[in-house]
Amino acid sequence: MLTLVIGNKNYSSWSMRPWLILRALNIPFEEVMLKFHSAEWDAKIAHYSPSKLVPVLWDGEVGGGDSICVWESNAIYEYLAERFPDRHVWPAGAKARAYARAIVAEMHAGFRPLRTAMPMNIRARFPGLGMNDDVAKNIARIEALWKEARERFGQPSASGPFLFGAFSAADAMFAPVVMRFMTYSPTLSSDTESYCAAVRAHPSVVAWQTDALAETEFVAEDEPYAGTFTKN
Amino acid sequence: MLTLVIGNKNYSSWSMRPWLILRALNIPFEEVMLKFHSAEWDAKIAHYSPSKLVPVLWDGEVGGGDSICVWESNAIYEYLAERFPDRHVWPAGAKARAYARAIVAEMHAGFRPLRTAMPMNIRARFPGLGMNDDVAKNIARIEALWKEARERFGQPSASGPFLFGAFSAADAMFAPVVMRFMTYSPTLSSDTESYCAAVRAHPSVVAWQTDALAETEFVAEDEPYAGTFTKN
Repeated sequence: MLTLVIGNKNYSSWSMRPWLILRALNIPFEEVMLKFHSAEWDAKIAHYSPSKLVPVLWDGEVGGGDSICVWESNAIYEYLAERFPDRHVWPAGAKARAYARAIVAEMHAGFRPLRTAMPMNIRARFPGLGMNDDVAKNIARIEALWKEARERFGQPSASGPFLFGAFSAADAMFAPVVMRFMTYSPTLSSDTESYCAAVRAHPSVVAWQTDALAETEFVAEDEPYAGTFTKN
Repeated sequence: MLTLVIGNKNYSSWSMRPWLILRALNIPFEEVMLKFHSAEWDAKIAHYSPSKLVPVLWDGEVGGGDSICVWESNAIYEYLAERFPDRHVWPAGAKARAYARAIVAEMHAGFRPLRTAMPMNIRARFPGLGMNDDVAKNIARIEALWKEARERFGQPSASGPFLFGAFSAADAMFAPVVMRFMTYSPTLSSDTESYCAAVRAHPSVVAWQTDALAETEFVAEDEPYAGTFTKN
């Protein structure tokens, strides 16, 4: 049995990435949420995550000596790809798979200006905020990667409107960027808008957003623009 | 045929990571070096690397429409693991492999204070420089990961003194950290010193260092401490 340990769904972009692929591919798992800055986090994080990072995936009993513990989104994707080879975590075809892994890795380590200036905050709407020259460069690069993936590997595809046709780890990796675009509303190409709409409508993303909108906690460090608008 | 496009060996920690595993596992490849801030870089980078990043691995003719192009160290490792399944890019055993991928991913995206304050500069010796509280935390985390890997997966091992016994992608990923420790000489545990000595003596690392020491170019942005000492 798999257990995925995550943070708040409204804020935790890293937690969202493995959760979506598990849900999208119908891989059964138990979810354990430890909310940031909570007494429960302080009491339980060392048990659930030896590295004290989320997300972390357990295969087997949490903390068990025979269990496997994996952290970092792309390492979790690779673990799931090996463990469930029939579920297609990665696209079929060596060329598509190489491209998918490269853009997932680029997302994993990069786009810091975007991540800093436009933190994920699913329930918030801060149109026009967060933009600067470095963020604009990040967004241009992301739009180019998405366009190239869809043109080369995703279309024409009967399997879906996603980067490589069917929803894969690459879409799960970039879904928090789609959430940021919803919150901060940068100007995007029609290609990008169309892809974002498809991601937002994927059942796994709908489910995550629904849970996020039901949360009420407020994590100040992830709310750099909260003072800008009246909050409900 | 594989082609690996890299930057200066003295400085390019990212280039070192895939180069070492190719060399260590005896996978034939052609090396193309484009030196940073050179006319050759400006003239050729777009041909060799559509993303203008190094390293980049080509499988097939460089720029060819049927060729596969992969960038980002960990994506290159996964590509090689699939392409050469008999070469053992990753350790055997699902648990060891999951741990290896997690620490490789953590290196790929993290340890920014260390990377910023102690940039790789193989020919330089700046003992005691670059240390601060965040760097110390990075080093403590790295020492803990190396120790845990060797205790759980590397020893006792007839296959080698490395993180998972035989030299794997995890060692190649952390080798630039070993180079930094050589340059900046932070205080390290005896376990760490012993591992570092093994990495420095691995034939692939010896070969890279030899090439690095033969370089004469000076890349100012990677030399924050260059004014501190008289240079030869």
